[in-house]
Formats: sequence, C-alpha cells, structure tokens
Amino acid sequence: MTSLDLELRVDLADLYAGYAACLDAGLFDEWPGFFTEDCRYKVVARENHDRGLPLGTMDLQSRGALMDRVYGVQSTLFHAPYYQRHIIGPARVTGHDHGTLSVEANYLVIRTKRDSPSEVFNAGRYLDRVVATDEGLRFQEKICVFDSELIPNSIIYPI
Amino acid sequence: MTSLDLELRVDLADLYAGYAACLDAGLFDEWPGFFTEDCRYKVVARENHDRGLPLGTMDLQSRGALMDRVYGVQSTLFHAPYYQRHIIGPARVTGHDHGTLSVEANYLVIRTKRDSPSEVFNAGRYLDRVVATDEGLRFQEKICVFDSELIPNSIIYPI
Amino acid sequence: MTSLDLELRVDLADLYAGYAACLDAGLFDEWPGFFTEDCRYKVVARENHDRGLPLGTMDLQSRGALMDRVYGVQSTLFHAPYYQRHIIGPARVTGHDHGTLSVEANYLVIRTKRDSPSEVFNAGRYLDRVVATDEGLRFQEKICVFDSELIPNSIIYPI
Repeated sequence: MTSLDLELRVDLADLYAGYAACLDAGLFDEWPGFFTEDCRYKVVARENHDRGLPLGTMDLQSRGALMDRVYGVQSTLFHAPYYQRHIIGPARVTGHDHGTLSVEANYLVIRTKRDSPSEVFNAGRYLDRVVATDEGLRFQEKICVFDSELIPNSIIYPI
Repeated sequence: MTSLDLELRVDLADLYAGYAACLDAGLFDEWPGFFTEDCRYKVVARENHDRGLPLGTMDLQSRGALMDRVYGVQSTLFHAPYYQRHIIGPARVTGHDHGTLSVEANYLVIRTKRDSPSEVFNAGRYLDRVVATDEGLRFQEKICVFDSELIPNSIIYPI
Repeated sequence: MTSLDLELRVDLADLYAGYAACLDAGLFDEWPGFFTEDCRYKVVARENHDRGLPLGTMDLQSRGALMDRVYGVQSTLFHAPYYQRHIIGPARVTGHDHGTLSVEANYLVIRTKRDSPSEVFNAGRYLDRVVATDEGLRFQEKICVFDSELIPNSIIYPI
C-alpha cells in the first residue's frame, strides 16, 4: 500500500461524507455535481436486485436526468417535506478496472417529518463505481440497494 | 496531502470514536476532558439553527459548565436511566483557521431503556471546532444540531 | 505514527466493512473465515457483561463451533428469515499485546423482515481482539455486547 492509496482512502471517505452532508442539508441542486456527466443513479429493492430483475424504484441515466429529478423534487412533486440523515459505514474498495473503482458501503437513512420523532427510513448498500476527475472523485454509477420493500410513503429525495 | 494530514485524519477518527465510547459507557466524568478549558457545547434543534435563532436545548460555555452539567446528571436530576449508543459517520474537515479545524459529522444516538427495545433517540449533525493541544485533539466548540423537535422525553445525557 | 500504522488503520476499517458485508449478504459460510482457528465469539447483554456475569446469549469457541452454528442457522433452526444491515462506527485501537490488538467499535444492526419496514434490531459495542495472519487481519476474539435485553424474537444470525 502506498501513500497514494492512503490518500485515496481519505478522499473516498470525504466523498461519502460530502455526499451525505449535501443531501441531508437539502442542497439538492448540488447533488448532480457528485456524478460524472455520463452516469447512472439507480434505487432498487434488494429482492429485485438479487434476482437480477431490472425493475428499480428509480433509474436515472446522465447528469441531466439527475437535474430533471431535482427540478421535480423541488418544483412539481407534491409531497410533505422531511429531513434526511445519512449514516454511512466505512467504504470498501472491492475492485478496480481501468481507473474505475468499485466501492461498497452500507447506509442508513433516518427520516424526520415535522413534529414527528426521527425514524428508520431506508437501509441498504451502495454499489458504486467511482472515477477520479479533475474536480476530484465522482460517481459514475451509484446503485442504492435497499433492504425493505415496505417504504413508509415514497422515496422523494435522493438516497 | 502529507503524511501529517493522514495522521490528523486518523486522530480525528479516534477523537470521535473515543467521545462516543466515553458517553456510551456512561463515563460522564470524563466527558469534559474532551473539551478545551474555554469551550462551548450546544444542543439545538435544526429548525432553530437553520433560522439563526439563538435558543438551544442546552448551551454550556467553559469546561466548568460541562462539569456542572455532569454533576447535575449524576446527582440532582430526577430521571429514568437509559443507555446511549452513538453511531457516528465519517468526520469531514470543512475548514481551518489559525490552527482551529472546522469538522462535521453525522450522528445517530440509539437509546435503550431498561426492559425496552433499542430505539432511535436523536439524529443530527455535529458542527465542531477542533484544536490540537498537548494532550491531543480537543473540542473547542461542539454544536449538536438534531433533526427532530419531538424528543422522546428529554435529553438528559450529553449527545 | 508510521506509514505502517496508517496502513493498519485502513486494513482494520476494511476488516469491519468486509465482516458487515459478508453477514448482510447472508454469506454465512464465509463468516468463520473472519476468525482465527482458535477463537471466541460471544454475544452478551450489557447488563451481564458489566457485572462480570458469565452468561452470554451465545458463546462459541473455535472456528469449528462457528461452522456448527452456521450449519444450524442454515439447516436445522426453524426461523423466519430476515435481512441484516450493519452500520459500524469507526474502529478504535484501545491496546496491543504481543501482536494482538484490542479493538472496539460501536455497531447497529437494522433488521428487515419480509413485507415489513426496516427496524432497529440490535445496538452495542464490539470488544475484539485482532491478529495479523498470512491471510490478513482476523478476529481472535469478538464479544458483541448489546444494549437491550429485550430482543425482538431471538438473534438467529451472527451479529
């Protein structure tokens, strides 16, 4: 392991911490900036993912599609607002291929609705592909595989 | 990034892990030792914090005030005891100014009351200022911004 | 702190992340491989552990005993299956003795039963002894001290 590897690990930890901080602060306009231009963001139930079924709760391709989603969340979707709080476990590099890292991390999202106690909202695993760009590490692909099919209401905000 | 930076990151991770371990073991007497002599510890609801409202659930200044609080918790406050368990996400350095680091980390506190299942108690974000002292890293300021205004009973122990 | 220490920290983070990933994927056959041949795995309520009472919910010694348990979980125990999701906080080295590291980490296990929302299942602290082997870091001892005595149903899978 070289000093470069150690730096990479620190940068990865920062990537996930920054991603969580962005979403939890509700700064959705900044969310697409964590992805490469040509990217994929998918949210899928574990049952479907494990069986290789293609159906996902959400499946967006390209940063433009992410920006569309943000517009929808902020301007057209009718929903009761809620706070998110991501607790993300240590990120683990599971492979690399021509400069693309495969990275996994467990996540837990706590949801807080106005005048309600905080509650477990969504738990699962990020299956990500990460690349180094001039602006730092970015997600080329982020697949959020969540454990429960029974989501309290729908998933409005990015996971 | 230098080897010194990497060391700092490891030390920061240890600071947060040690802080959590201290509180979760109920070693409240050791809690003020994680702060500098001249310090601030504040617990505030996100709604108030985001609007710049000064009112906090708790706002202590100086290590002596923290020691007073510990005395209260252990000797005068009437409350049903409970266990805390902190799960803290990766700490992220968001700035530094003349040797003071601004550090943020998401946290989740699980509470367990006697003969009850464990439950989500408090989730939020630490907004901290950390300085290096002869005894290691210490909190000069720790602001715990929690997401839910609806706390199950009151917050007795430090967050 | 040397570069070797930093590497060790990264390796430790990977050990815990890999352990969580193995269990959460339900790859129980691989679970004993995280331990040394001569090992101990114990699950004990905090109340009993703090009082020095020997009684644990589970107490296995040697890797063979772990393999027996896995066989039981997969083949003979009658239970409704559920998903686990581990969120593990930063691991902290609390001591070392002749090549054996004492390591602590807070953990939270979220459980998801079929057609049910995810819920807090088990929260507590790992009290581990870790050694370096030719195949990487392994647990010589793992004691899972959980906060709540009131477990929703029993603990079937490893924590």
